Amino acid sequence: MSEQVGVWIVGALGDVATTVVLGAAAIARDLAPTTGLVSEAPPLVGLPTAPLSSLVFGGHDVRRGDPHTAAANLARAGVIPVSLLEPTADALAAYAGRIRPGVIFGAGEVVRGLESEGAAERRAAGPREALELLRADLAAFREAESLTRVVVVALASTEPLSAALPELETLAGLQALIAADDPRVPASVLYAVAAFEEGCAYVNFTPSLGSTPAGVAELAIARGMPHMGRDGKTGQTLLRTALAPMFVARNFQVMSWAGFNILGNRDGEVLDEPGANAAKTTGKDKVLSAILGDRLGTSLTRIDYVPSLGDWKTAWDHVHFAGFLGTQMQLEMTWRGADSALAAPLVLDLVRLIELAQRRGRSGLQTGLASFFKTPEGVAAQALPEQLELLERFAAELAEPS
Amino acid sequence: MSEQVGVWIVGALGDVATTVVLGAAAIARDLAPTTGLVSEAPPLVGLPTAPLSSLVFGGHDVRRGDPHTAAANLARAGVIPVSLLEPTADALAAYAGRIRPGVIFGAGEVVRGLESEGAAERRAAGPREALELLRADLAAFREAESLTRVVVVALASTEPLSAALPELETLAGLQALIAADDPRVPASVLYAVAAFEEGCAYVNFTPSLGSTPAGVAELAIARGMPHMGRDGKTGQTLLRTALAPMFVARNFQVMSWAGFNILGNRDGEVLDEPGANAAKTTGKDKVLSAILGDRLGTSLTRIDYVPSLGDWKTAWDHVHFAGFLGTQMQLEMTWRGADSALAAPLVLDLVRLIELAQRRGRSGLQTGLASFFKTPEGVAAQALPEQLELLERFAAELAEPS
Amino acid sequence: MSEQVGVWIVGALGDVATTVVLGAAAIARDLAPTTGLVSEAPPLVGLPTAPLSSLVFGGHDVRRGDPHTAAANLARAGVIPVSLLEPTADALAAYAGRIRPGVIFGAGEVVRGLESEGAAERRAAGPREALELLRADLAAFREAESLTRVVVVALASTEPLSAALPELETLAGLQALIAADDPRVPASVLYAVAAFEEGCAYVNFTPSLGSTPAGVAELAIARGMPHMGRDGKTGQTLLRTALAPMFVARNFQVMSWAGFNILGNRDGEVLDEPGANAAKTTGKDKVLSAILGDRLGTSLTRIDYVPSLGDWKTAWDHVHFAGFLGTQMQLEMTWRGADSALAAPLVLDLVRLIELAQRRGRSGLQTGLASFFKTPEGVAAQALPEQLELLERFAAELAEPS
Amino acid sequence: MSEQVGVWIVGALGDVATTVVLGAAAIARDLAPTTGLVSEAPPLVGLPTAPLSSLVFGGHDVRRGDPHTAAANLARAGVIPVSLLEPTADALAAYAGRIRPGVIFGAGEVVRGLESEGAAERRAAGPREALELLRADLAAFREAESLTRVVVVALASTEPLSAALPELETLAGLQALIAADDPRVPASVLYAVAAFEEGCAYVNFTPSLGSTPAGVAELAIARGMPHMGRDGKTGQTLLRTALAPMFVARNFQVMSWAGFNILGNRDGEVLDEPGANAAKTTGKDKVLSAILGDRLGTSLTRIDYVPSLGDWKTAWDHVHFAGFLGTQMQLEMTWRGADSALAAPLVLDLVRLIELAQRRGRSGLQTGLASFFKTPEGVAAQALPEQLELLERFAAELAEPS
Repeated sequence: MSEQVGVWIVGALGDVATTVVLGAAAIARDLAPTTGLVSEAPPLVGLPTAPLSSLVFGGHDVRRGDPHTAAANLARAGVIPVSLLEPTADALAAYAGRIRPGVIFGAGEVVRGLESEGAAERRAAGPREALELLRADLAAFREAESLTRVVVVALASTEPLSAALPELETLAGLQALIAADDPRVPASVLYAVAAFEEGCAYVNFTPSLGSTPAGVAELAIARGMPHMGRDGKTGQTLLRTALAPMFVARNFQVMSWAGFNILGNRDGEVLDEPGANAAKTTGKDKVLSAILGDRLGTSLTRIDYVPSLGDWKTAWDHVHFAGFLGTQMQLEMTWRGADSALAAPLVLDLVRLIELAQRRGRSGLQTGLASFFKTPEGVAAQALPEQLELLERFAAELAEPS
Repeated sequence: MSEQVGVWIVGALGDVATTVVLGAAAIARDLAPTTGLVSEAPPLVGLPTAPLSSLVFGGHDVRRGDPHTAAANLARAGVIPVSLLEPTADALAAYAGRIRPGVIFGAGEVVRGLESEGAAERRAAGPREALELLRADLAAFREAESLTRVVVVALASTEPLSAALPELETLAGLQALIAADDPRVPASVLYAVAAFEEGCAYVNFTPSLGSTPAGVAELAIARGMPHMGRDGKTGQTLLRTALAPMFVARNFQVMSWAGFNILGNRDGEVLDEPGANAAKTTGKDKVLSAILGDRLGTSLTRIDYVPSLGDWKTAWDHVHFAGFLGTQMQLEMTWRGADSALAAPLVLDLVRLIELAQRRGRSGLQTGLASFFKTPEGVAAQALPEQLELLERFAAELAEPS
Repeated sequence: MSEQVGVWIVGALGDVATTVVLGAAAIARDLAPTTGLVSEAPPLVGLPTAPLSSLVFGGHDVRRGDPHTAAANLARAGVIPVSLLEPTADALAAYAGRIRPGVIFGAGEVVRGLESEGAAERRAAGPREALELLRADLAAFREAESLTRVVVVALASTEPLSAALPELETLAGLQALIAADDPRVPASVLYAVAAFEEGCAYVNFTPSLGSTPAGVAELAIARGMPHMGRDGKTGQTLLRTALAPMFVARNFQVMSWAGFNILGNRDGEVLDEPGANAAKTTGKDKVLSAILGDRLGTSLTRIDYVPSLGDWKTAWDHVHFAGFLGTQMQLEMTWRGADSALAAPLVLDLVRLIELAQRRGRSGLQTGLASFFKTPEGVAAQALPEQLELLERFAAELAEPS
Repeated sequence: MSEQVGVWIVGALGDVATTVVLGAAAIARDLAPTTGLVSEAPPLVGLPTAPLSSLVFGGHDVRRGDPHTAAANLARAGVIPVSLLEPTADALAAYAGRIRPGVIFGAGEVVRGLESEGAAERRAAGPREALELLRADLAAFREAESLTRVVVVALASTEPLSAALPELETLAGLQALIAADDPRVPASVLYAVAAFEEGCAYVNFTPSLGSTPAGVAELAIARGMPHMGRDGKTGQTLLRTALAPMFVARNFQVMSWAGFNILGNRDGEVLDEPGANAAKTTGKDKVLSAILGDRLGTSLTRIDYVPSLGDWKTAWDHVHFAGFLGTQMQLEMTWRGADSALAAPLVLDLVRLIELAQRRGRSGLQTGLASFFKTPEGVAAQALPEQLELLERFAAELAEPS
């Protein structure tokens, strides 16, 4: 396949985006192993997904900054091997040239403080004009790079939880809001709309709204586009969805499950704002109650910003459970993972799978991808083993042209 | 069903046995919840297994001692609620009256030092006569208590790993060894032979040989008896088989997995003898390599005797793994569980399920019970999710008389 | 010495108070060892402190409740041995008969919801009359029990941080506030005033104000009474003050020190109110910066209410530090302690030592007791080793009548 | 001071040695902070110790290898900043030119397998001739580099525990053994003898014998040389000696203290040999019983080789202790430290302090340095706070020429 596939990253200057672009180049050039890429292991490895060498990266960001500095910082922190910086510098440079100013409406103060001039202008222009500009960027990217297909991936910082907007629940309502230049339209929704209008598949790796509202999902169907979200399942929640089913299988009562995350990257800084934090921890707690149901007493999840840790998210979970005759026991876990190194391969997996789904003519929510998300849309199953069965079935369906 | 089902415990004076008998009485009398009993939760809860109130307990032990003292010690250590001691005292007393001297050939020094007079006599008598005495005990138990069926459960301390005995691999060889009064016949094998000869189903909850050798399994088929083993999966290994598949699913490399167990009960004391320790840790390491295959660098498991901990086995696992671009991360877990409280409900579950299997006319290895064992015989699958699917299928098969 | 010494506990129905009274009786009757009592080990063991058998307990509480129920609950949770309940029942009964309604002004909603009728009346009466009633209770206690000396110990739930009251900084201002029936006078201050006015030594084991304001301390001097506070150092902070000096001694940089406490007793419930939580965590963070100074990057302490844990406070500390050439390393600690079992012996130690100080004619702050407190008043030294040297010197001074 | 001070490292190609030489150069050139250097913080910072820029490094090693490769490996593992490799390359090159073949008699198989040709020849020559060669190397080093003084530091891999050699307990016996070319003379002793005979101060940072035997210590006195050992206190034991005194101060019973170390550097590989492991863990356990005395139930320390961890020694400690009324609690700690980064600054500190001691005319054991060692010779105090007081006194004594 000599087709080129575009990957348009919203949040293009973030650590995850940088790791995605650098990592894809490194692996395509045989400088790094495929470890961590789910698409390179059974049951997905045989699928005709786009090779990493065929991916072309670009994106939006509201921030000032450049991917080289981000990569150098990640290397210094041990998230990326120092030895990969130089041999991938050209790929990052090309990528830097394809980054356009993003828009921001619903974001918090920290993000706003980092805004670039171009992004400030687009924000001032209002939702209606901003949408046109985002669409134009996507169209120009496809044209300039001669791309067969483009996938849009949301990797931007978490938007604060905002009041429910009932208008977003229908396509008509959504369109009316935009037409009225209503500033309550979340930026994450605008990006999803732009993607579908431009014929791009869409993946929401963040806890922000994105393609979640029914009105946006309606648009995806109308345009025949596949999409899936939301909130990538990278660390503590991955662990929890692997472990919680064990407590069910053994008929234990989980009297309490308390989890504390400390991290120091921009994600952590943004989450220091209470609204964004709530958006994030709510999803984490729901996962436990979905799997454990009545077996769960109380659960508690906190995310705290500890600058010195940088990208190294450290999570402590304390599970207090009762077994035979009510005897009380404990399980403690400490997870020490590099956030960007955990997220980046999943982003590449999702891009490859949703692009293949589009090629296979599928549209709407791709629930077979549930295992990649903390809050998989349209899927009740939260337990990892059940979600992995969905993935296996999905792989079987995608194997052959239908 | 007003039938009475016999449960004959080998290792009748151990902590697990005591917890089993006391717990069954407490739950049957509505003094304790059914927490921890897998047979009381989906997918097993609707099956026509024997009610706990129909179980009659007896057993063999080589030791001096009595179940009341054992129960009082467990209560003092917080493994059993103190409040249950008095209301179950009669059940323990009846049980104490049905305990007969066991035999010991392959056991270590610690166990030998605790031997009762009756057990010493039986040991002196040699394997051939010992087998006859064990069989007579089973027959007398069935007769005296008017039992419809009897299940034999091996809960005795771990026998040391001994040199392979090729004779055990055929029924004829096994019978010749016994006829020749060869002292190398492991006691655990003799108990299994006695069970099958007396028409009893058999469960091996220990790492000792039991019904594992092909010659013994042949006898089970010849007598039409169901059986399964070996080594109950109660704590650290349960956790590992729930978690290790996650590393596979995400295409991580597990560079090393090191686990340390500290415990202070008799099990720990026996495991202080190097032979017995090897028998135990070998199984634990195999589980990881079976699930992780090539992804596993090195693994290491230790069990150490720390008297002060009593029944509270504490296990620390350190997992060092590599993800995207080879970035190295860590997961640590500390499990703090009461060994007897973890094992006892599984023993009751296995008794109920193997008894139902016998009623359904099944014989030979019951591989559907794999999830209960560290080394499930006749089953390649070590990952907990796969084993739980086997259990689900098993439940469906047992649901209706075939 | 056949003298009787009174111990008047503010917060008389709490778990710590119950453990103090039951424990003193159990040890005095040789039913329990002296483990955990600092006054029974070097360098204090030889001092002529009051024997436990000479202590007579009474106290104030704003709540409904009784010590027997509290003791039974603590025993069920494994904080107190079940076997001690019966042999100390008479001591708890006598104590219950000496508990009088307390007052509450500055306390939070949780505490207010538990208020007894008597306490509600006293609150309605206002500070001036409340003070008279508290003093009358102390006088009646001393009289009724023929006590040589009475020590007042503050063990009540944490008061919320309130706005600074400059009037409290002089004795005249304090007296004017009370005379004016100003409801902003914290209850904890009233109790300290009552103690000094009645010639009682005073110990503040809580983070509330108590004898901290300069006006109250002035009164202690005026009345010749010894006192010390505040906030008993029982668990996580004890550990921190033992460990943090190690980082100084090795010239490490502590880039971050993050600590999370989870607990489920009434203390935890009260701390669920943001004001009270701030009062508590502020002290915990100050300790670290006092010891580490410039070496400390950021610190963070949280206390969360997890009901299932009851009295078993579990604290996780994550220390991220840099050593030679800036290499970054980590230390993690998990402390699992029964809060009341940790606090109770220190309360007895403090009562015995402050009573001896009073006998020796000392008045004002007893800084030699710094090692018992999270925020030792009048002492800059926060490192445990330095505080233990102060204690050693204190012991030497108290050894002989001056 | 324009004097040059020689530092002769036994084990010159090990990771610690490499880190010492590279680190000294980096700090002397202001490329790295002085973090981790005890000699750069109170109470030592003002002492007239030799500046790092005045140190000249050389040494013995039995292995093949070169410091550049060692440094590159350490940098790859995150123990040394990658950015320091190039600017210190000249210092490592100069050092490489001053490394001479060592001798090995009592070492284990792993070490023997790595032996260089030169070392093999020296081993074949026997102790008597080997000693002459070692001495000649020291003399040549001093001469070639115009060094005022030379300090010999033992950093070689741990020798296995060997049978006691009573001859080593007198100087005459020792000299007779060497004269007789007895192969039982441990290499570590030969190096110490060479040091003293050549007028060099000596530091034993390893658990091997070195200057410990009375006969060797006698020689130090005879030659007027200061020395101290043994076994650098870098990680788990440092933590234990800081924490154990807390349990004493609070009159707790430590029912058990179990510690497990996993590491993957050559030190770990050598310790995989049972003899060497015993030499190491014995010291670790003694520290606890020295501090806790009767309060200690059982203790247990293990060191296991887990190759993937490299230099990152990870230690888990589980402390089970009893407090008031016998209530049982737990403390767990996980220490994750880079072994070489922990050891290297202490080596520089010891070199500077023992050199100053020599300048001040001191000879024999320098017990003021106890806090740097796991088994401080001639010092009973094992608690870190007490040892730090010794250090403070030592600093005061060295401050002025006597």
